[in-house]
Amino acid sequence: MATELKDLTKRADDYSRWYNELVVKADLAEQSAVRGCMVIKPYGYAIWEKMQHELDAMFKKTGVRNAYFPLLIPKSFFSREAEHVEGFAKEAAVVTHYRLRATADKTAVEVDPTAKLEEELIIRPTSETIIWNTYKGWIHSWRDLPILCNQWCNVMRWEMRTRPFLRTSEFLWQEGHTAHATAEEAEARTQQMIKVYADFAERFLALPVMQGVKSETERFAGALNTYTIEAMMQDGKALQAGTSHFLGQNFAKAFDVTYLDKENKPQYVWASSWGVSTRLIGALIMTHSDDNGLVLPPKVAPLQVVIIPIGGKDMSKLDEKLGAIAANLEKKGISVKYDNADNKRPGFKFADYELKGVPVRLVMGNRDLENGTVEIMRRDTLEKETVPMEGIEERVEKLLDDIQANIYNKAKSFRDAHVYECDNYEEFKTRVADGGFFLCHWDGTAETEAQIKADTQATIRCVPFDFEQTEGVDMVSGKPAKYRVLIARSY
Amino acid sequence: MATELKDLTKRADDYSRWYNELVVKADLAEQSAVRGCMVIKPYGYAIWEKMQHELDAMFKKTGVRNAYFPLLIPKSFFSREAEHVEGFAKEAAVVTHYRLRATADKTAVEVDPTAKLEEELIIRPTSETIIWNTYKGWIHSWRDLPILCNQWCNVMRWEMRTRPFLRTSEFLWQEGHTAHATAEEAEARTQQMIKVYADFAERFLALPVMQGVKSETERFAGALNTYTIEAMMQDGKALQAGTSHFLGQNFAKAFDVTYLDKENKPQYVWASSWGVSTRLIGALIMTHSDDNGLVLPPKVAPLQVVIIPIGGKDMSKLDEKLGAIAANLEKKGISVKYDNADNKRPGFKFADYELKGVPVRLVMGNRDLENGTVEIMRRDTLEKETVPMEGIEERVEKLLDDIQANIYNKAKSFRDAHVYECDNYEEFKTRVADGGFFLCHWDGTAETEAQIKADTQATIRCVPFDFEQTEGVDMVSGKPAKYRVLIARSY
Repeated sequence: MATELKDLTKRADDYSRWYNELVVKADLAEQSAVRGCMVIKPYGYAIWEKMQHELDAMFKKTGVRNAYFPLLIPKSFFSREAEHVEGFAKEAAVVTHYRLRATADKTAVEVDPTAKLEEELIIRPTSETIIWNTYKGWIHSWRDLPILCNQWCNVMRWEMRTRPFLRTSEFLWQEGHTAHATAEEAEARTQQMIKVYADFAERFLALPVMQGVKSETERFAGALNTYTIEAMMQDGKALQAGTSHFLGQNFAKAFDVTYLDKENKPQYVWASSWGVSTRLIGALIMTHSDDNGLVLPPKVAPLQVVIIPIGGKDMSKLDEKLGAIAANLEKKGISVKYDNADNKRPGFKFADYELKGVPVRLVMGNRDLENGTVEIMRRDTLEKETVPMEGIEERVEKLLDDIQANIYNKAKSFRDAHVYECDNYEEFKTRVADGGFFLCHWDGTAETEAQIKADTQATIRCVPFDFEQTEGVDMVSGKPAKYRVLIARSY
Repeated sequence: MATELKDLTKRADDYSRWYNELVVKADLAEQSAVRGCMVIKPYGYAIWEKMQHELDAMFKKTGVRNAYFPLLIPKSFFSREAEHVEGFAKEAAVVTHYRLRATADKTAVEVDPTAKLEEELIIRPTSETIIWNTYKGWIHSWRDLPILCNQWCNVMRWEMRTRPFLRTSEFLWQEGHTAHATAEEAEARTQQMIKVYADFAERFLALPVMQGVKSETERFAGALNTYTIEAMMQDGKALQAGTSHFLGQNFAKAFDVTYLDKENKPQYVWASSWGVSTRLIGALIMTHSDDNGLVLPPKVAPLQVVIIPIGGKDMSKLDEKLGAIAANLEKKGISVKYDNADNKRPGFKFADYELKGVPVRLVMGNRDLENGTVEIMRRDTLEKETVPMEGIEERVEKLLDDIQANIYNKAKSFRDAHVYECDNYEEFKTRVADGGFFLCHWDGTAETEAQIKADTQATIRCVPFDFEQTEGVDMVSGKPAKYRVLIARSY
């Protein structure tokens, strides 16, 4: 096991392999027996729970309530919203039968051919269709609006190439679906939620993100506008970390959902939908971690502090002293593990907790006990310091805040150092393969967009907000361009 | 809407219809477009969230951690554990294809016949098989044990006759799966978890339950022992509210999961599994509610207090006073709604909050304001009282505790009054159709058990714990019996 820890591939040698290995070695997830579906192990799931807890509270503060809609969607629903069919319903798991039976020789089971469904059912790839079919019964008058529902659930898209957390056939997510009386209100909610995601990503996950609006090509099928937050991974590639869609009246029209306005006239309802998924765990890993393993922002770390004694045969005094420190930290709401297991050497423990990204490590030996000191190490920089035991709880508390801030600042500095304005297509083509976010003038046509993708595999990630736009010339077509877009290769 | 509220069928007229109507009228859930699958609406889901929150904390206190395993299970896994096949794998949703395509005329979608899976995948009806296939990779030595995992997820069983919450094709639940080095430890965990469920049911849901062990016929497929908690509904029928299974080494053997013991010898691993589901919401409703609607124990009520002003044109003073009371209650951790909406009459609001089972209602009019009083109503007994405004917060807090206790005591008195010792089969056959729990001597044979079921539809619910057993004579066969069992008709 100890040798395994050392075997982690270095990022510089093979970033992609480093990631895949780290997911497994840090006990976050593993491939399952089902193609493209992963098992999320307790340590990985604890990160997801922390994310859920925080996001759920943020949603509820904005008036959102949770509900649950069926896993299976009748096939015909996918025909209703024409654009939606084209974009989404292709790679999906299809339920055709509802019974297994024993084989004639009783040694195995087989599908009972007589138990065939009249209409096939699709495992939800996303739930707009079944939810809007449901909302039809909930909405009659303007007084029934807005509806602000969210669900935490599993979804399934039959992906051909999968990677743990980043792209899996089944994944966990939340999907919010809101219904409004006016376009303005639905659009405002769409923008509100991308801001909630950006705030969550930056404050909680320490992920700096660029907010913006997608090009028509990159929009969610059925949306009039898709807002996105884009994060930069350490290889300079972009990762779409969350999206929020202004759906106009498309689903209301597809499922005939109208309300009577104050003048008693029927109107189609306006919609938004928005989601983030377990993909965020992949973003966390790829943004912060290093060649020693995970680096986790304290706010999302399942375990924030580990305390390790280094004693001789008699550990009772160390146990007493460190046990008291652990108890005090827990009282402050800090999650702590006191690891005095005697079947693993300290060196193994150090490497293991580094690999798992525990933000703060305290170590105390018998000499420390005599001197009233303790060694404190921060995972983000690996800096060690011997400090007085007195006041260690306050020091740890402050250090956790420092680490959270430092991890964010480090990621932001890295990101900012790899954002380039670029006006020359030849230069762009040479440089984009090395990663980075390129801000380039775009003429707004799908042709130029397709050209860039064909030449470089890079895509328009968004038209960024919070960026002072100037007019210019499209670097590909030479045509006039009203603004710059963010272009990058992406996950 | 107001008339709808009054239309609730009375329990005495048609208990089953009363239940179905109440689920819909109280906004808990509704039938979806997919046969046998329900939509859990925000008010119903909020009850589930409260249950999850409490149970999850109780699990974690016993060392359990959450994880997530795939939704889909390869068909062949169901052939591994032979008994499991017979009992479980029959009515299940089968995924056979992984792609939809547009029809030739582009107006609809159809299943792409070329995208057929080599091996069909089954939507999990329960996860023992995929989890034990995973545990194989996690368990090598005795040091890897125990493993104590739980998952919160959706499962699917293709039920022919469904009822909201009580029996649906898809439902939400938690399933715990533990792995141990010894039979004793696995059996102890199995019993520990049924006690956790009983404690949760009684303390949180105010549901008195009988704990016991299932007969061989009623055991979970693949289990050596199934423990159960059985609750009594108001029609005297039993409802199985939670189960915990001692699985022996069955799944370890089926999936070849062994560990090296301290002598370095390979041993098969021992297992338990245990679960409760959204069915508990059905149990809550059927146990406590009345002809006016839901009665919810305060601990599980999404909204604990509603405050309604009855004013004239100028509501400002009432708003100020009642707003302050609401804020004070919230500070105490009590969930409150101040409903001063002017588009609904007070009478409508009263009926609506009664229907929704809000435990405490405060009403204040202008005369109360002058007198410094407020009207307080408790939902469980519908008793009203006019009390001083001074100290209302403490009074509400205490009343919520009283209501929680009273609801439990009421259910327990009802249950206790309908538990009968019965030694005569003719008498039993006459009386069992009217409901109630019958404690009868049983000779331990499956034949007698089958006879009772065939004659009366009643089943052996369990051999109850905490019951002073005496030997006797089986009321059906006349053979010697070592103990009494609990027999009842059930949901």
